[in-house]
Amino acid sequence: MTDLSAATKAFIEGLTFDTDGLIPAIAQQHDSGEVLMMAWMNRQSITETLAGGRVVYWSRSRQALWRKGDSSGQEQRLIELRVDCDRDCLLLLVDQIGVACHTGRRNCFFTAIRDNNPIVVADVIIDPSQLYKG
Amino acid sequence: MTDLSAATKAFIEGLTFDTDGLIPAIAQQHDSGEVLMMAWMNRQSITETLAGGRVVYWSRSRQALWRKGDSSGQEQRLIELRVDCDRDCLLLLVDQIGVACHTGRRNCFFTAIRDNNPIVVADVIIDPSQLYKG
Repeated sequence: MTDLSAATKAFIEGLTFDTDGLIPAIAQQHDSGEVLMMAWMNRQSITETLAGGRVVYWSRSRQALWRKGDSSGQEQRLIELRVDCDRDCLLLLVDQIGVACHTGRRNCFFTAIRDNNPIVVADVIIDPSQLYKG
Repeated sequence: MTDLSAATKAFIEGLTFDTDGLIPAIAQQHDSGEVLMMAWMNRQSITETLAGGRVVYWSRSRQALWRKGDSSGQEQRLIELRVDCDRDCLLLLVDQIGVACHTGRRNCFFTAIRDNNPIVVADVIIDPSQLYKG
């Protein structure tokens, strides 16, 4: 783990969190530009992500830190963390191991509106039963 | 304006909105993959975006529809709208006219943590005073 500098700690404190103490984080594959997923982070998950280099979110459904890949093996390695002009949204440039989506697809945005109709536009790459063996 | 099909209307009704009736939307330049910005949409803005082909958000600060580009000229043309596996986040593939950010930068995510230090990593392309002439 890297010790965060005073400037980085001040950066985290300067972010705009919502009333639940959360900020949305977009994960993008650093080399291909593919948008993989959107999830939420809190101060602790941002701190751990920057210190450890592995992406950690906050799970709203479980109300707990979500070290992505702990159950599925599909970790995200942090390449760079960015914030937007309003300091209320993060962009994580990552290297995704395997697939980002719990459905076994590479990214979570696999339903599109085309020709005025919702359709699935991405294939399952890994059988979800192989991702979560319990 | 295109009349939305019953399937597309059902798709909109099936989205997961937060308690304010909003859903986050990530705008990505369709050809380069650049993540431009994140903003919020409600049912009406999604309907208008899909029907008209020009991206319309909901401004939380102004509590009004935000037809992006109305004041700045920097419109976003919708190429494709996608939703994620949980149906609680949208990905908009767009063609951005000019710059997405009110600071005059191409995208809003221009502050990065590098070498344990926050720094600005993108240049201003258009002087903001030229974007908002009142």
